[in-house]
Amino acid sequence: MLRTLGTCYYPEHWPEDIWAEDARRMVEAGLTWVRIGEFAWSRLEPSPGDLQFEWLDRAIEVLGQAGLKVVLGTPTATPPRWMADRHPDMFAVDDQGRPRGFGSRRHYCFSHKGYFAESQRITRLFAERFGKNPHVAAWQTDNEYGCHDTIISYSEAARDGFRTWLQVQFNDDIAALNAAWGNVFWSMEYRAFDEIALPNLTVTEPNPAHVHAFRRFSSDQVVAFNRAQVEIIKDHSSAPISHNYMGRITDFDHFKTGDDLEIATWDSYPLGFLEDRVGASPEQQRAYARQGDPDFQALHHDLYRAVGKGRWWVMEQQPGPVNWAPYNPAPLSGMVRLWSWEAFAHGAEAVCYFRWRQAPFAQEQLHAGMLRPDSKDAPAMAEAMQVAAELKDTPDVQPAQAPVALMFDYDADWAWATQPQGQGLSYFGLIFDVYRALRRAGLSVDIVRPETRDFAGYKMVLVPGMMHMPDDLKQALAASQAQVIYGPRSAARDASFNIPNPLPPALPGLDVTVSRLETIRPDMPRPLKGGGAAIHYVEELEGTGEPILRTNAGEVIAMRDGHKIYCGAWLDDDGFGMLLRQLAIEAGLTVRDLPEGIRVRQTATEEFWFNHTAAPVKTEVGLLPAAGVLRRPRPAC
Amino acid sequence: MLRTLGTCYYPEHWPEDIWAEDARRMVEAGLTWVRIGEFAWSRLEPSPGDLQFEWLDRAIEVLGQAGLKVVLGTPTATPPRWMADRHPDMFAVDDQGRPRGFGSRRHYCFSHKGYFAESQRITRLFAERFGKNPHVAAWQTDNEYGCHDTIISYSEAARDGFRTWLQVQFNDDIAALNAAWGNVFWSMEYRAFDEIALPNLTVTEPNPAHVHAFRRFSSDQVVAFNRAQVEIIKDHSSAPISHNYMGRITDFDHFKTGDDLEIATWDSYPLGFLEDRVGASPEQQRAYARQGDPDFQALHHDLYRAVGKGRWWVMEQQPGPVNWAPYNPAPLSGMVRLWSWEAFAHGAEAVCYFRWRQAPFAQEQLHAGMLRPDSKDAPAMAEAMQVAAELKDTPDVQPAQAPVALMFDYDADWAWATQPQGQGLSYFGLIFDVYRALRRAGLSVDIVRPETRDFAGYKMVLVPGMMHMPDDLKQALAASQAQVIYGPRSAARDASFNIPNPLPPALPGLDVTVSRLETIRPDMPRPLKGGGAAIHYVEELEGTGEPILRTNAGEVIAMRDGHKIYCGAWLDDDGFGMLLRQLAIEAGLTVRDLPEGIRVRQTATEEFWFNHTAAPVKTEVGLLPAAGVLRRPRPAC
Amino acid sequence: MLRTLGTCYYPEHWPEDIWAEDARRMVEAGLTWVRIGEFAWSRLEPSPGDLQFEWLDRAIEVLGQAGLKVVLGTPTATPPRWMADRHPDMFAVDDQGRPRGFGSRRHYCFSHKGYFAESQRITRLFAERFGKNPHVAAWQTDNEYGCHDTIISYSEAARDGFRTWLQVQFNDDIAALNAAWGNVFWSMEYRAFDEIALPNLTVTEPNPAHVHAFRRFSSDQVVAFNRAQVEIIKDHSSAPISHNYMGRITDFDHFKTGDDLEIATWDSYPLGFLEDRVGASPEQQRAYARQGDPDFQALHHDLYRAVGKGRWWVMEQQPGPVNWAPYNPAPLSGMVRLWSWEAFAHGAEAVCYFRWRQAPFAQEQLHAGMLRPDSKDAPAMAEAMQVAAELKDTPDVQPAQAPVALMFDYDADWAWATQPQGQGLSYFGLIFDVYRALRRAGLSVDIVRPETRDFAGYKMVLVPGMMHMPDDLKQALAASQAQVIYGPRSAARDASFNIPNPLPPALPGLDVTVSRLETIRPDMPRPLKGGGAAIHYVEELEGTGEPILRTNAGEVIAMRDGHKIYCGAWLDDDGFGMLLRQLAIEAGLTVRDLPEGIRVRQTATEEFWFNHTAAPVKTEVGLLPAAGVLRRPRPAC
Repeated sequence: MLRTLGTCYYPEHWPEDIWAEDARRMVEAGLTWVRIGEFAWSRLEPSPGDLQFEWLDRAIEVLGQAGLKVVLGTPTATPPRWMADRHPDMFAVDDQGRPRGFGSRRHYCFSHKGYFAESQRITRLFAERFGKNPHVAAWQTDNEYGCHDTIISYSEAARDGFRTWLQVQFNDDIAALNAAWGNVFWSMEYRAFDEIALPNLTVTEPNPAHVHAFRRFSSDQVVAFNRAQVEIIKDHSSAPISHNYMGRITDFDHFKTGDDLEIATWDSYPLGFLEDRVGASPEQQRAYARQGDPDFQALHHDLYRAVGKGRWWVMEQQPGPVNWAPYNPAPLSGMVRLWSWEAFAHGAEAVCYFRWRQAPFAQEQLHAGMLRPDSKDAPAMAEAMQVAAELKDTPDVQPAQAPVALMFDYDADWAWATQPQGQGLSYFGLIFDVYRALRRAGLSVDIVRPETRDFAGYKMVLVPGMMHMPDDLKQALAASQAQVIYGPRSAARDASFNIPNPLPPALPGLDVTVSRLETIRPDMPRPLKGGGAAIHYVEELEGTGEPILRTNAGEVIAMRDGHKIYCGAWLDDDGFGMLLRQLAIEAGLTVRDLPEGIRVRQTATEEFWFNHTAAPVKTEVGLLPAAGVLRRPRPAC
Repeated sequence: MLRTLGTCYYPEHWPEDIWAEDARRMVEAGLTWVRIGEFAWSRLEPSPGDLQFEWLDRAIEVLGQAGLKVVLGTPTATPPRWMADRHPDMFAVDDQGRPRGFGSRRHYCFSHKGYFAESQRITRLFAERFGKNPHVAAWQTDNEYGCHDTIISYSEAARDGFRTWLQVQFNDDIAALNAAWGNVFWSMEYRAFDEIALPNLTVTEPNPAHVHAFRRFSSDQVVAFNRAQVEIIKDHSSAPISHNYMGRITDFDHFKTGDDLEIATWDSYPLGFLEDRVGASPEQQRAYARQGDPDFQALHHDLYRAVGKGRWWVMEQQPGPVNWAPYNPAPLSGMVRLWSWEAFAHGAEAVCYFRWRQAPFAQEQLHAGMLRPDSKDAPAMAEAMQVAAELKDTPDVQPAQAPVALMFDYDADWAWATQPQGQGLSYFGLIFDVYRALRRAGLSVDIVRPETRDFAGYKMVLVPGMMHMPDDLKQALAASQAQVIYGPRSAARDASFNIPNPLPPALPGLDVTVSRLETIRPDMPRPLKGGGAAIHYVEELEGTGEPILRTNAGEVIAMRDGHKIYCGAWLDDDGFGMLLRQLAIEAGLTVRDLPEGIRVRQTATEEFWFNHTAAPVKTEVGLLPAAGVLRRPRPAC
Repeated sequence: MLRTLGTCYYPEHWPEDIWAEDARRMVEAGLTWVRIGEFAWSRLEPSPGDLQFEWLDRAIEVLGQAGLKVVLGTPTATPPRWMADRHPDMFAVDDQGRPRGFGSRRHYCFSHKGYFAESQRITRLFAERFGKNPHVAAWQTDNEYGCHDTIISYSEAARDGFRTWLQVQFNDDIAALNAAWGNVFWSMEYRAFDEIALPNLTVTEPNPAHVHAFRRFSSDQVVAFNRAQVEIIKDHSSAPISHNYMGRITDFDHFKTGDDLEIATWDSYPLGFLEDRVGASPEQQRAYARQGDPDFQALHHDLYRAVGKGRWWVMEQQPGPVNWAPYNPAPLSGMVRLWSWEAFAHGAEAVCYFRWRQAPFAQEQLHAGMLRPDSKDAPAMAEAMQVAAELKDTPDVQPAQAPVALMFDYDADWAWATQPQGQGLSYFGLIFDVYRALRRAGLSVDIVRPETRDFAGYKMVLVPGMMHMPDDLKQALAASQAQVIYGPRSAARDASFNIPNPLPPALPGLDVTVSRLETIRPDMPRPLKGGGAAIHYVEELEGTGEPILRTNAGEVIAMRDGHKIYCGAWLDDDGFGMLLRQLAIEAGLTVRDLPEGIRVRQTATEEFWFNHTAAPVKTEVGLLPAAGVLRRPRPAC
């Protein structure tokens, strides 16, 4: 296939007489895709029922005639002001009970039935009008579900929806719910489903089973909201449907929305992320301030490849400084190109730059684009054009299954958030630390979803921190030929957030029991024999498994039985690096010890090298300049 | 008397068919006491009036038949869900005006008359049914009054109660209140009691007299709530009545609730406290992460000995990692035994471990017990059994009056909280620093209540930070033969939170006047001549008293007239250590300079040595192993 | 003219029989002025309509007869409790929607029409009764507008007022508003003015144009509130009218309130400010803990000289420790005198100490006065008396235009607050850094208001950070003979908070364009060639201007065309120092490199030297003792 580039465009922001010139310049720049429409509701329906779609017809025509393919977004992330008059209680409510009102975006509660119907109505109007438009080559539902913490809502609509959802989950048996949640503790038992409140504003922490169920419900509401749009679009269009996920949003199960979509896309803002959500140390933040974290984007690429069942894009690629992070520096020269190629190396079908022209008004007026507000080229333009030229002149990237699988389970993320047991501990953080260790060893990784049962082709499978593991997953992993690495905290809870008996992890074929667990202060790492340290989260292990990792004090940190390994602690970079490199070698993998900031991604035939540092780095394949990209044939293993 | 052990048990959490085995193992472990019932309301009255006490009858019978003595708790800390339907406004309200609802525990406002009556009703049902039960050997009212900041409530019920309380305090004379509070300042005068609001949500800080009065009222509401239960129980039972106080809860006057009870108990979680509320430096937190602060528990032991008028227990002793601190490490091996013996050395009648078996469900599923969730012994079990054996094999501890008295005044704590005048300054913090200095000097200390007027037997009496000192206390101290050490901030306010005239402290027999005060940044200690420094809070002293402590810059920090001393500053560890050791020697006491982490407690006949560090320490009585306990005859003075 | 001293007095706080003695002592201390009345409403009108002004008549008489001049304050900052019954919705509402109620002060919303009328009513009563009183020599409106964040209110009254205000601004044309704000972005368009809500409680940040307009509206409400009082007073009195502004309150345009007043006064609390609002580093906070920041007060002096159109006072001068900062140390001996003389050196007509006698009750009981609560002299008294004697014995200060003008624009401060683009960045902070660099170079500075168009007499004019610059200001500056220094961020937005096209700054006669901007982490300064660094905020510059400052990496930081300079970055102390000293020399100014903590202020004939450090400092004019003041003839340039 042909890897392609694109951009995000807002015809409603500009005079109609410059659309054609904009389109011409997009094509000239080598772009294929243009995403439009997703925030335009107030221009399409300025008053309820007053439909004014003609300008959008014309915009699509102008873009299409210029040779561009349109991705059309449903505008449901920004209902107009009049919607709040029709549905005054449509807003999400924060955990302190405050409605999150009109005046920016994403001002709706996924559980609000009235707005749900409105979102179907406008989607139907879009699908009917544009479903057969030859220029509309793909769809996008809504925009960045979950951005600005908008999944979890403590509204009355959510409360009512949650009660109904629980009623279904527990077959209308309130005693079953009380038993499953252990509500006898602290006399929290309910007599009926309509006695159940949302788990906020309690005196001290609410029941974790209650919280976790509410997280599952909240995720399901997003899935239903998205599915409703998809079903309508599919009635009128055969173009593929996508959603643009936002980085490090884990409040809903992307795999489940992904099941209803053809393509997963995500919005990649490496510098904003580094400042705002990677959680890097100040040293890392300084070192990568203008390049972004070397692994954060790659992890998302691999995640969305899984969410998209192989088909995925970057829908919004940062082209320059953004407006929303604590500090907003400019990317180092070359990074826009590097980010683009990194996406392709991980299998992206397309990379679209956000946005075409920087808006001189409103919230994102300091968010760079490919053009400056005065329509001159911004620095990103030249790099995008270089990528376009390179795409044209070089063979297509050939994706391939990676040798290493890392399971990612949104439900586990909610479980850790519900019960971190230590300040700042998160499932995502653990996954990211494991992923980084694999990447520093030069390994290419597939993220796999928790429903995966067939691990054929993988030499190594990692399942850290997956707090609830269904029995058939345990069995499938036990039966796998791969090296399997579990823990910490894997299989620590049953499906209802209780500690199982026998005690966790109760893995077939690996006799290990977590008899106790500790969380430890970040300034008290426990050094390991051989280097590195256990940090954050440390389990005490019993069993007949062979101890393979100990602290200096002799505590057993990891045990194995053949090629099944349980690791009972969160390790620091050196610890995970040491353990995983050793196990990878045993699994028959070629490992490297890559220099700081250098990363490698292998495809079926090639190997891409990326220098994420701000200086040239000497590597085994030669000197890589700052922000450098090297593409070469994959060496024989 | 025989010092005893016990545990906390929740028969309602477990199948009835394991109760007998549990009871058998408790007895086998050497336990005497089992506390039950305090969270069981929803099982005893699943719906209003639907009483189901039979299971509790049977549980008591099983436990009693096994040889255990039952402490029965009234379940008023966890009213069932239906209570909220009967009394929708029963919840405490936080300072931002948000009701603190159902879903965890302590979800009631002490001022709510409807819930007050319900608490009396259920207590009466308990008393009537179990008052004569031979196995019920003691009672507990409610559970941990004040935990989760539940004393101070900004509800309408509290507002109405406060108005009535003020009306009584001021004999229905609003002018008297205006005068007492200085309401002419900023035109805050009221025309009637029902104009008075609660002191929250004001534009800037409210009148400290207003705040402080509200604190006194709030404390009185707890005393009344507790007394109502006590009166009912006493009508039906002659067993002693206790309450289990929580560490570092100072929002109500424990001495006043204690006046209505036979026994004071407290809940001791050394590791959770160190992380959560001791206020130790990061270095201290690292050094004692698995042992707890060396003085924090001892201070509470001495405090509750006073609250209990000599009769006190540890009702909940941490047995392993807990679930509620920022980080939750496991105790160092030996610490559960050390903590137990430390309590006995301070005079505890009993130590009960919380809880028997770790619950696999709900909020405390990661709170260790004596048993693991799978019923195997957790590490605490062996240490508890060792203590049980030691208790059996050694002579009883003989408590004795200590040579040093330290006055603790809850009212002063509220006064400091109302007007800290420097960030982070608290009365408890000052008391704790003084207490630690005394302990590091090897001194045993009695905490004495503010109503104490007879100081016979004490060689040294300390009254730091007691912002309001009644005249008869001043006279009693002046008349005492003991070395008396006042200040800083002692007698700084009159009963209505005004600065008295003549200026403070106005002590009989010690001519010293605080002419000005400063609070200083923590990074600007003022070094003292001779070592140590004044920190936090520094008063300028005038008068004819003899200066006995100065800063390097020459400021007078402490003055004396004979054996009465006023110290006008908060001192650091070295400063308090130097000053108090010197004064103790003058008072005829034997002082030591104990090694880091070593503490000594003297009884009538013995001396207990404790090593709170994680390594062996060489002491004058030999090498003490990590977590070591040494018991030896008290040397002649 | 004669420079004078005064104090703030609350006759209603003290028994009437000590008023005369107090007045006598004030005169004896050398005081001229006594401010009274501003918090006395509840004593003047204890119930609605029950006027009791006689005591105030008598107080004024006693003070006046003693020889003092009275400044009479309207009491509108502290409406009595009964006002809340008449106007239950009169309170300001915070950004979380919580009313800020009765119980302290400033408990009103400027937009509340009912309270607005009440404020006029009480002002009229004051003006009618005291307008001709010969002892009332000046007036004060209200007290410290904006203290405790009371300008920005999210009340319904404010919402309604804002809608009306916008309707006027946009000539009742909602389409014009939508276009000006760019509301097409995120479908934020309104159909009518009554659809507009206040910009709080939105899901993510609201439109900056919306926020900024609300800031302008909020400022206008203060101006209107103040003007209403002024108009009434002027009907009855010819005495000058003042308002006492509080330090670093920028939420309303002081120049605009100042236009309605004869005198600007401000309340100077150097130690409280250093702890609470200067934003100094911990090192600076330690070094100046007992002296205050060396430039913070001076900046305010220069600002209020401009606000007062030359007539300004210090209405409240800190005399000792205050009660409201995080830490409250005592001033170093000599600082009260230094602060007084510094004010005079900057042109103050009067300095009044707050307050006469420390109140033993209510919120400010730990705020020092000239007298202690027991009426003995507090330390400030001797220093004030020394200043009084010095004033009597020395020639009057002769103010003069400074050679350097620094423009201060409240609107720009709101713009930066609306869109900081980097954590912690503020316009005030930038202005303060520039001002400090000028002062360290020994330069005297005039603050000039944004409406200034005549720059005659200035050799150097600085206009940093003024985000919106009207065209006629640009023209006036271009035409000026002065060295003019713009940027960073000058002229970056049009009047509606949009990025202009051509891109900023678009200055006549200086070809420079900001093509991109970055904000950078505070730990990532960009070193400049020649020393110092660019910090916080860095613009990329294009154009034909001559580059005069570059980073080590070669980025152009400043450009010039003749004597017009654009600086595209916030610089650190060394950077601004180097650049501004060099430019000042070119402008023909004499510059110094003053020792740490030494500051100089020149008048027409003299030069005042101040040592703000706690140790003697050697200077070119000799050794200055700690807290020392030196006055000498101005040297020839």
